[in-house]
Amino acid sequence: MTVERTLHHFPLDPFSRQARLALGEKKLSFREQVEKYWERPPGLQALNPSGLTPVLVEADGGETIAICEAPAVLAHIEERYPDPPLLPASPAGRAEVRRLAHWFDTKFHFEVNGSILHEKMEKRLLGLGSPDPVVLRTGREALKVHLAYMEELLRDRTWLAGDRLSFADIAAAGHLSVIDYMGEGMWDAFPAVKTWYAKIKSRPSFRPLLADRQPGLPPSAHYHDLDF
Amino acid sequence: MTVERTLHHFPLDPFSRQARLALGEKKLSFREQVEKYWERPPGLQALNPSGLTPVLVEADGGETIAICEAPAVLAHIEERYPDPPLLPASPAGRAEVRRLAHWFDTKFHFEVNGSILHEKMEKRLLGLGSPDPVVLRTGREALKVHLAYMEELLRDRTWLAGDRLSFADIAAAGHLSVIDYMGEGMWDAFPAVKTWYAKIKSRPSFRPLLADRQPGLPPSAHYHDLDF
Repeated sequence: MTVERTLHHFPLDPFSRQARLALGEKKLSFREQVEKYWERPPGLQALNPSGLTPVLVEADGGETIAICEAPAVLAHIEERYPDPPLLPASPAGRAEVRRLAHWFDTKFHFEVNGSILHEKMEKRLLGLGSPDPVVLRTGREALKVHLAYMEELLRDRTWLAGDRLSFADIAAAGHLSVIDYMGEGMWDAFPAVKTWYAKIKSRPSFRPLLADRQPGLPPSAHYHDLDF
Repeated sequence: MTVERTLHHFPLDPFSRQARLALGEKKLSFREQVEKYWERPPGLQALNPSGLTPVLVEADGGETIAICEAPAVLAHIEERYPDPPLLPASPAGRAEVRRLAHWFDTKFHFEVNGSILHEKMEKRLLGLGSPDPVVLRTGREALKVHLAYMEELLRDRTWLAGDRLSFADIAAAGHLSVIDYMGEGMWDAFPAVKTWYAKIKSRPSFRPLLADRQPGLPPSAHYHDLDF
């Protein structure tokens, strides 16, 4: 049975990036449809009433299903394509992966994306003027706290949730890689995070993300370097 | 094997309520530990570095595991105690449940809780003064949009995601029941939502929530009525 897959996404959306990384890790091919979600495209709205990316559409000849937003896309991919696993088998392992993925999707998203990405990306895309340095500074302080927490975890662990790559790493990489694109990385101050990010960045699943280029928003000088 | 369960929760936290409802639907007993999360209790912080509720701690004689925050708690409960199912078996059904649960936990939470619960509950708990009527009005307008969307879904469906009670209903009930406690229900304008909420409210799993009473924050007059 051939499954036809289309991913509706926006390249610099941290949640869309999680779907692309997860599909890449599972070696699942997909057609891409880039969505400028802030323009409320009717096609996207019809697939997902919230109007947000990512949406994964799968058609297997019979049913066509739309899976909306990163947590559902990741859960679906794991259930339908269990190999290689991106969630551990044990209840404790699964809980730890989910705790960390949720941390990045809620706490990091609110505290860091809500200021740094809003000021440097969304304002540009929406034509809302230049970044507010006070808000940017608040975002950078919050980013430091998150990177320090990751550094603490990664001193004892190969990957964020333990000894295997998991959805926790994919969630974190979805968010941090956009921060990196914007040149806000601060990698040198957090050596264990830097090693972790270099490992993620050199995976085949990450390669398409390195090619992303948003008109009017060029990536930082070191965004493409695997040895940054 | 006996599993000892403790739920760390705050009675008026919409996410904690989801864990209580899900445990109730699965008929799983648990000890309760009420946490005033905004006071950052060290015990809670040690279990969940984000400092948020709910946290479910399960000990089965061997391992003790802590499952942090509603999405992980719900996923864990479903995986470990599949009967009765609160997620459908089909990929399309699971995607729809997850889409709606995520809708309430992100969009509803941001647009409605962020104004109504912040103004009427958090400000009171934190001693930040009285509600701002302008913010409250914005929250009420957003609530209307959400209730209208639910009304549309519930015209064709018995439960939010289809013909069986699921985590979508539990997520929605977690959030809406706190709105109801605060007397912000607007049920009469949305008859299908009112029928749905009356059904949820009369389930045995909801009974403990009807007994909640927060000092200084009494429930609305109709909060306890099953026939409201």
